[in-house]
Amino acid sequence: MSQLRVDSRFGGVGVVDHLRAQLPADRVITDPDLLENHRRDEADLVADGLPLVLVRPRSTAEVATAVRVAAEHGVPVVPQGARTGLAGGANAVDGCLVLSLQRMDRILKIDPVNRIAVVQPGVVNADLGRAVREHGLFYPPDPGSFETSTIGGNTATNAGGMCCVKYGVTTGYVIGLEVVLADGEVLRTGRRTPKGVAGYDLTSLFVGSEGTLGIITEITVALRPAPEPALSLVAVFPTTATAGAAVNEIMASGAAPSLLELLDDVHLRAIEAYRPMGLDTNAAAILLAAADTGARAAADLAAIEELARASGATEVYTATDAEEAAALLAARRLAHPAMEHLAHGLYAQGGLILDDIAVPRSALAELLDGIAATAAKHGVVVGVVGHAGDGNLHPNIVVDRADPESVRKGHLVFDEIMELGLSLGGTCTGEHGVGLLKRGWLETEAGPVGMRVQRAIKAALDPTGLLNPGKVL
Amino acid sequence: MSQLRVDSRFGGVGVVDHLRAQLPADRVITDPDLLENHRRDEADLVADGLPLVLVRPRSTAEVATAVRVAAEHGVPVVPQGARTGLAGGANAVDGCLVLSLQRMDRILKIDPVNRIAVVQPGVVNADLGRAVREHGLFYPPDPGSFETSTIGGNTATNAGGMCCVKYGVTTGYVIGLEVVLADGEVLRTGRRTPKGVAGYDLTSLFVGSEGTLGIITEITVALRPAPEPALSLVAVFPTTATAGAAVNEIMASGAAPSLLELLDDVHLRAIEAYRPMGLDTNAAAILLAAADTGARAAADLAAIEELARASGATEVYTATDAEEAAALLAARRLAHPAMEHLAHGLYAQGGLILDDIAVPRSALAELLDGIAATAAKHGVVVGVVGHAGDGNLHPNIVVDRADPESVRKGHLVFDEIMELGLSLGGTCTGEHGVGLLKRGWLETEAGPVGMRVQRAIKAALDPTGLLNPGKVL
Repeated sequence: MSQLRVDSRFGGVGVVDHLRAQLPADRVITDPDLLENHRRDEADLVADGLPLVLVRPRSTAEVATAVRVAAEHGVPVVPQGARTGLAGGANAVDGCLVLSLQRMDRILKIDPVNRIAVVQPGVVNADLGRAVREHGLFYPPDPGSFETSTIGGNTATNAGGMCCVKYGVTTGYVIGLEVVLADGEVLRTGRRTPKGVAGYDLTSLFVGSEGTLGIITEITVALRPAPEPALSLVAVFPTTATAGAAVNEIMASGAAPSLLELLDDVHLRAIEAYRPMGLDTNAAAILLAAADTGARAAADLAAIEELARASGATEVYTATDAEEAAALLAARRLAHPAMEHLAHGLYAQGGLILDDIAVPRSALAELLDGIAATAAKHGVVVGVVGHAGDGNLHPNIVVDRADPESVRKGHLVFDEIMELGLSLGGTCTGEHGVGLLKRGWLETEAGPVGMRVQRAIKAALDPTGLLNPGKVL
Repeated sequence: MSQLRVDSRFGGVGVVDHLRAQLPADRVITDPDLLENHRRDEADLVADGLPLVLVRPRSTAEVATAVRVAAEHGVPVVPQGARTGLAGGANAVDGCLVLSLQRMDRILKIDPVNRIAVVQPGVVNADLGRAVREHGLFYPPDPGSFETSTIGGNTATNAGGMCCVKYGVTTGYVIGLEVVLADGEVLRTGRRTPKGVAGYDLTSLFVGSEGTLGIITEITVALRPAPEPALSLVAVFPTTATAGAAVNEIMASGAAPSLLELLDDVHLRAIEAYRPMGLDTNAAAILLAAADTGARAAADLAAIEELARASGATEVYTATDAEEAAALLAARRLAHPAMEHLAHGLYAQGGLILDDIAVPRSALAELLDGIAATAAKHGVVVGVVGHAGDGNLHPNIVVDRADPESVRKGHLVFDEIMELGLSLGGTCTGEHGVGLLKRGWLETEAGPVGMRVQRAIKAALDPTGLLNPGKVL
């Protein structure tokens, strides 16, 4: 990981003085505690580094100034949002300038007629959701971190979420960007119109580029009419094969679930141990489904119930009101804390390696069985949760951070799951991004020609390689 | 247009011999009539050139061979599909190799469970639509040329269409590509899974790049469940302001029209003159709307009718069955032939300059009024038709090709409409692409930083500039 240690050519003191001379005093921070706090995102067991300086700009001009000064001094720039990422994409490298976009948190415009919003990158996903709902509108992408993660971070990682099975991921909603380039110039991409094909699609290029091509300073997103409250059900399956079959039947049926999530037996037991909800801990898996299209929702949900039963579900509970529907969703939202609780119960220094594999839906059952076999072979606890309707699963691998052998085995399981996923026609990341965690797997997935093209684009936009070095590529 | 005349460094004969040595005999064509036939797409009044050779490959390997040989000889390569484009993006340049992808026309896979299809670029849009419908599936993008244009051409231009107001444009459906690069290497982008964020979004970069970054040789598209038959209505408006207001009310209401088209008074009269259908030629504009969501369709259509009346529609006719709905749609599909008929009625050598401006929906009425004012000022006939729900209008400018002053005035009107559209926050092309027709306007729209980034990407992927030279940039 030699890329993670980059010396500044002009010495550290110079760049900080230079930043202080050009930015308001409160923007440039060298407090050791704050620098320590900005080392990393939420990915466990991934390398990080100590920033030299933290800059908290309030405007695009201030971002441009910081990037320009950093470039003059040869200091790498690592952009950060709420640091809720799960692949180390926001991790600092030693001696870098961390650029926190959290204070650029204004919603600049909500335009109900043209169904768009223009926001700064630090706006929290849920805050945008609440603001547009007052206009009867809806911003769909809903990563698990939606109450804390920012639209800037969501855009940089092309975040997904639960409702993406019906509404698609972040890139489907971002129609225009303002980006500070590696040389401090300001680029505007895209449009504010519903359609537009003028020139190369630079907007989509920056979405999901994890801060390696430029710093996103403004985002124009498309909005949708707010859906009606969703109806939900939970279906209990005795085997992974029956659960996988149900997902395929449902998605092939023409029903339009607004959510179709899977929780495996490890998660069911973890949630019951963490906060008892009466889940069937003998089941192999449960599917949680919802439908939100008004008059059609009830029909869709009835069809989903029938298909689940026909595929082998032993029980199906349908929520009869919004409160029950919310309770079902709450179980899903407990998946991550429950697994952390399980990890800490197993080991004093328990940790989780989070995977984020996506496969064709038809391969779901095979992937689930393969993960269970890998886990058993190595004697590692792996719980699987995820967006089954999209074929996107999150195996959570439990390790003992105090035991190098346990961590080694965890990484081995991670790699075997990756290998299996790719062999099934899948991708190494469905929604978390590559970051540091999956650089090697990106190489495998993209192949030499794919990597050459990606590196050529990186070199074209960031020739000195100072933007988020060592990430993605 | 000096870029349009490129001499081959090794002389023309060499490259043809070299191609014949490496490809099956019927792939390499130098018949003068066929070369003449492959000079251009359907954009009128745009420069073209005479190809040196036409290559019709049957496989990706043959495309790679042709590109490699062309690169060795420094001969530019111009890819073509069905040549239905409307911006000159497929026009040959003198001395080029035209690479026609029309014979790579196989549907390689339809996978109903994972809702994807894999096709070669020469598959005709409507053929794919019919093939997937047998599986209860739907490939939404429906450019006006859907009965003849190819998925490869649709992808290269990021084609739109009528149903995009509900279902989005081509880029929303293309999830993976195979591309022959400028050096003949074969790149695979994207995935076959519903989700995936591994590395830069190269797929979206190639979609809409109009053959300037690589030759698309295979396309993986996402499919949707087939919608139920649409219900339709037509609403008649006394003024452009009332029609524009209706569009805004409908789109802001939460109704989900599957089609929301506008025809102006010039088109109404042109269609009545061409094929009388009983349209109200005294109206300022009509809106054609449809809804296709099963149980919700009738409610949506009723809401649309009410909003149209409240906005000032003088009459609303609702189709009572599929036959009547088809008749309404037929009027819309007659727009282009009717305008050509009108042009030829006005001038022996009548021609049309087609514009493709997109503005925020809220600016529709202002755009319509501005177009009418520009047309009146210069004494030029301009008819406007388009995808009102997306703010995407096609002003059709009638000129006398035999009269240079008429052609000059037509281009003047084109430029004034462009200027107005951009000043309203619009884009110079909603769905036709930049091609040759709008290179200057792309510069205005993208600005110097935007052009620098686009040129850097072009240089990174096509350093010698042999792929579709002179187009887009």
